[in-house]
Amino acid sequence: MFKACLAQGGLLKRMLEAIKELVSDANFDCSETGIALQAMDNSHVALVSLLLKAEAFDPYICARGFSLGVNLNSLNKILRCAGNDDTITLQAEDESADSLTLVFDSPNQERISEYELKLMDIDQENLHIPDTDYDAKVHMSSAEFQRITRDLSTVSEAVTISVTKEGIRFVASGEVGSGSITLKKGSSVDSNISTTIELSQPVSLDFSLKYLANFAKAAPLSDVVSLSISENLPLLVEYEMESVGFIRYYLAPKINEE
Amino acid sequence: MFKACLAQGGLLKRMLEAIKELVSDANFDCSETGIALQAMDNSHVALVSLLLKAEAFDPYICARGFSLGVNLNSLNKILRCAGNDDTITLQAEDESADSLTLVFDSPNQERISEYELKLMDIDQENLHIPDTDYDAKVHMSSAEFQRITRDLSTVSEAVTISVTKEGIRFVASGEVGSGSITLKKGSSVDSNISTTIELSQPVSLDFSLKYLANFAKAAPLSDVVSLSISENLPLLVEYEMESVGFIRYYLAPKINEE
Amino acid sequence: MFKACLAQGGLLKRMLEAIKELVSDANFDCSETGIALQAMDNSHVALVSLLLKAEAFDPYICARGFSLGVNLNSLNKILRCAGNDDTITLQAEDESADSLTLVFDSPNQERISEYELKLMDIDQENLHIPDTDYDAKVHMSSAEFQRITRDLSTVSEAVTISVTKEGIRFVASGEVGSGSITLKKGSSVDSNISTTIELSQPVSLDFSLKYLANFAKAAPLSDVVSLSISENLPLLVEYEMESVGFIRYYLAPKINEE
Repeated sequence: MFKACLAQGGLLKRMLEAIKELVSDANFDCSETGIALQAMDNSHVALVSLLLKAEAFDPYICARGFSLGVNLNSLNKILRCAGNDDTITLQAEDESADSLTLVFDSPNQERISEYELKLMDIDQENLHIPDTDYDAKVHMSSAEFQRITRDLSTVSEAVTISVTKEGIRFVASGEVGSGSITLKKGSSVDSNISTTIELSQPVSLDFSLKYLANFAKAAPLSDVVSLSISENLPLLVEYEMESVGFIRYYLAPKINEE
Repeated sequence: MFKACLAQGGLLKRMLEAIKELVSDANFDCSETGIALQAMDNSHVALVSLLLKAEAFDPYICARGFSLGVNLNSLNKILRCAGNDDTITLQAEDESADSLTLVFDSPNQERISEYELKLMDIDQENLHIPDTDYDAKVHMSSAEFQRITRDLSTVSEAVTISVTKEGIRFVASGEVGSGSITLKKGSSVDSNISTTIELSQPVSLDFSLKYLANFAKAAPLSDVVSLSISENLPLLVEYEMESVGFIRYYLAPKINEE
Repeated sequence: MFKACLAQGGLLKRMLEAIKELVSDANFDCSETGIALQAMDNSHVALVSLLLKAEAFDPYICARGFSLGVNLNSLNKILRCAGNDDTITLQAEDESADSLTLVFDSPNQERISEYELKLMDIDQENLHIPDTDYDAKVHMSSAEFQRITRDLSTVSEAVTISVTKEGIRFVASGEVGSGSITLKKGSSVDSNISTTIELSQPVSLDFSLKYLANFAKAAPLSDVVSLSISENLPLLVEYEMESVGFIRYYLAPKINEE
């Protein structure tokens, strides 16, 4: 028997919103530690990794590990029927369950909505992602990161991200012209989130703006986003929610065809 | 001569919004008692019946009964030009009038807008709808009814409505999965409107969600909606506006093809 | 060297929004007096004339007159990346510059965005528009003018504007019916802007509503719009921004084909 009850239903809604355009079908791997999901995006360019810790739920009952194969678009449709303040309870009979039960309780408990989502078999190999020391790690405002990816999308499809001791710089160049946005280390734009930089060596790499703009939709989950960058490694874009879990996006750099 | 002056123009705007997607052309039947409209929806599945009482207007002048054949889409376009606080005056020369005059006065009376709407001949037989004792009559929040029809539309095109002494239950089931929403008797969700139930015997019938969602758009007209249900009778969905009038929608149950 | 720094970036954004649907490419003529633009709309029916005075900028450095050929759609895309409170600095190397630099500084100066817009050669003859004494000059609320053009667009593509000592009247007539809106002299609708009329003789002329509705989009630039009308002259629709500049639209009357 699996049962996981989340007091703030809005959190699950926002997590699904943050991955539904990248991934269509995925396994939710349930275990003692919590609910994890790992999936390549539909074009096999980016990797999404998500964890909802067992501590985020109350109660969280999961006797032994198993997987729930879910169509994320269908799950998202059903989650839209939950209020942001509803308590969401996930339930499945056992590991061979062919449906996931979602119960939404309104705060005053006088409306009870219950949905059944049909499950599917998804063949998926989980990659082991090794812990890595990155050349540069930047913490910045997630709202600002969203704004930058949206603004630069107006001039180009690709962006060069450069990190130095002084700050982080995003440069895009296209037919119409070019744009560059610089955040100085220590600065706090649009919010109280200060830009911090840990650097072992300066880096400068090119990435697809379409993917970054998609990752940036996770902004409602956390005020801070961290970008971890190394030459020859995928970029890691991470939204961490203290004592709840995280969403991590990995994106390979564009190779310069010069 | 026909002249009817409505202090709160917003009311007429909202009434038109509530029927314009169901009915394209209809007769407004003007008489001493007020302005009535009765029409089948475009697919001849649902019936809309609307009354604006003479008392709602000041003045209301209607020497003898006659009908105004109106294209509701055109009327709605013109009504959108009225402010919600404008006074709306409807005027027609006589029973053979070929146009309806609408005058919109802004509250300070310094802008006067006048529109002429061309009328049309509509051949329409009015059905006599007998008063009926229904097996179940439920009063509930109109906002909640709108939310339920919208939410369940994500999983199916049809809904089973079941009423028992304990409460009212909406169940929908489709390819993606299924959903059910239960309102307990006496509960008040999202508002201060308590769910009340008058029951002579429990009922359970299937209806098209598309139509119910369309009816539910009348929510801005009244905080309360009443659902009257009997085996072998069309469902009656009613929005009553005290001392102003009502909108009633009738919808035949779906026949179970089992 | 050309450099012009505008403390309220939002102003430039709104000006571009007000002309971008009428004109696709145009020269910004920079001189000691400021930045001027004059262009026929894409269908060669209306003329747009815009001035941003040198006083509106601080600093404003323009050694000698020259023109910047700009695709307004591209410029508008870039301006959307500026915050309303950003300071916008326009910079160009010299008169043979092939790009315009736009720098957006956020109020706390901790984010710096820099865009380069490619310039183009535009062959454009500037018309001399003589000062004219009009038969009628009406000052009215710009929000009200926008509302009238939008409302009457629902019934027709053309409007007759008539000005008398008593007021200004807009009449439109189409297949669905007709509409007329009258503003009395001295009245103030929706705002504190009183309608004033200077009249040497009554006028009544027909204009395209599509163009007027397009001009009316300049409403956010000024609370007041002035309409100057004479028989046999183009209508002048003007939005003046004290000590900043103006936008003027000219539109030829429709010829009555009776």
